[in-house]
Amino acid sequence: MRNIKLTLAYDGAEFHGWQIQPRQPTVQGLITDILHRLTQEQVTLHAAGRTDAGVHAWGQAANFKTESHLAPEELAHGMNALLPPAVRVRVAEETGPDFHARWCAEAKTYRYSIYRGRVMPPFLWRYALHHPYPLDFAAMSEAARCFEGQHDFTTFAASSDSEEDDLDRNVLRAIYSSEMIAAPAECASHGSRPFDAEQALGPDEWIYVVRGKSFLRHMVRKIVGALLEVGRGRLEPTDIARLLELRDRARSGPTVPAHGLCLLSVEYPAAPSTLPRDPDGLQ
Amino acid sequence: MRNIKLTLAYDGAEFHGWQIQPRQPTVQGLITDILHRLTQEQVTLHAAGRTDAGVHAWGQAANFKTESHLAPEELAHGMNALLPPAVRVRVAEETGPDFHARWCAEAKTYRYSIYRGRVMPPFLWRYALHHPYPLDFAAMSEAARCFEGQHDFTTFAASSDSEEDDLDRNVLRAIYSSEMIAAPAECASHGSRPFDAEQALGPDEWIYVVRGKSFLRHMVRKIVGALLEVGRGRLEPTDIARLLELRDRARSGPTVPAHGLCLLSVEYPAAPSTLPRDPDGLQ
Repeated sequence: MRNIKLTLAYDGAEFHGWQIQPRQPTVQGLITDILHRLTQEQVTLHAAGRTDAGVHAWGQAANFKTESHLAPEELAHGMNALLPPAVRVRVAEETGPDFHARWCAEAKTYRYSIYRGRVMPPFLWRYALHHPYPLDFAAMSEAARCFEGQHDFTTFAASSDSEEDDLDRNVLRAIYSSEMIAAPAECASHGSRPFDAEQALGPDEWIYVVRGKSFLRHMVRKIVGALLEVGRGRLEPTDIARLLELRDRARSGPTVPAHGLCLLSVEYPAAPSTLPRDPDGLQ
Repeated sequence: MRNIKLTLAYDGAEFHGWQIQPRQPTVQGLITDILHRLTQEQVTLHAAGRTDAGVHAWGQAANFKTESHLAPEELAHGMNALLPPAVRVRVAEETGPDFHARWCAEAKTYRYSIYRGRVMPPFLWRYALHHPYPLDFAAMSEAARCFEGQHDFTTFAASSDSEEDDLDRNVLRAIYSSEMIAAPAECASHGSRPFDAEQALGPDEWIYVVRGKSFLRHMVRKIVGALLEVGRGRLEPTDIARLLELRDRARSGPTVPAHGLCLLSVEYPAAPSTLPRDPDGLQ
């Protein structure tokens, strides 16, 4: 059996999330169907992260085992020919037999986009939260940094429900970086050039970028909810440490909508066939 | 009667163009309906340019006359509350009685986007032509410049049909600037920053930007078709002057698809109430 790794991009607005569900369009369901058409096999597709309904991906990773002799580039080409434009296989590559997109992942990076302009551009509303009201960027930046390090993230976990990920019983998570970013000044300075009018990260867009070992369900969206409370002055940056210590799901800020969130990338050890080094520990 | 000027942005993928048509969603039809709901009047909405089906706008201009006493900001707010997110009123303002969005326009700027990367990002396919094959940027830039100045654009006009604009009988058009632009180097250099992965004008996007007094139907899309022929080496930059001289609609290159095209802005005299200075001349 060959083990194939896929790097996938998709527009989350078109799907009810990653995970296959009956009678709903899902990314896993769609790709599984298309692999069946290409290989005549019923493959099992594992993703690094099971993105929720509405969440976008630029660098989702997935793997599946196959008896097919198609070269990885042929698979990618064939899949892209059959997939709608809302899903693209960016890369297909053969990996070692032990590679598992979920268990081998060393880090994931998510971005949350906030559009600050008064009127939401019609090209951006599917991909960013519209928040044109006053926000204190410096306070939000300071608060974002407070999530770095290893913390018990109970306060920022989804409310309990039967659908919840088994992993969520372990609520310790390691965050490597957590920051607010506004448009780089050198790019925003081209305001008079016509294409800047529509630039995704123009002077009116802020993004939150977080990189960590793994994340609880809804965790990034709850972190951004808390950052917005800080931006509005309803919380102080120093309240973040207090909220983390509470370990109380009922005490987080609002969960921001899914459509501003994008899974940017998933990182693996240099040799992607490496076995998970700590299969019983943090995932 | 008050005369209100609107600056409009819309996602052309959602409409059968600007101009009102029975049983088709059009931008003019939608806005006329919404103004009727807000003012109880049947207004006539004039646009600077009647964009074709699929063509986007960031800075379309339009005007209408009304007896309504709503302040322009109230009108914009009320319209945006009723419009779908695919259409936005960016600005509403009161102008002089003689202002007409079409006849008073002094210049329009269009952009055509070409995505050069191997795999089309799922966030960009509605807004750019995918052309991952080799193209000579320098030759296309040189050819683009050849359209500047006043020319007979018959070769780059839509094939005759009964729907055609009356103005198209006059085929002289003044082009003030015509250029190919790749991502500014200083922005593309941030490739390692995660938000660059999805930037609209990343290293893989080229745009053609053209500013002129007015344009024939399909003219920008036929110019881009010719530029792609130059990029592929099937035409030389020096062939552009020859094609213009032919004045033969049958001799243009292919017409590129509508979805890469966006009306970026429309310019008016400093005082927007100024009467058209040359109502019988070039429009």
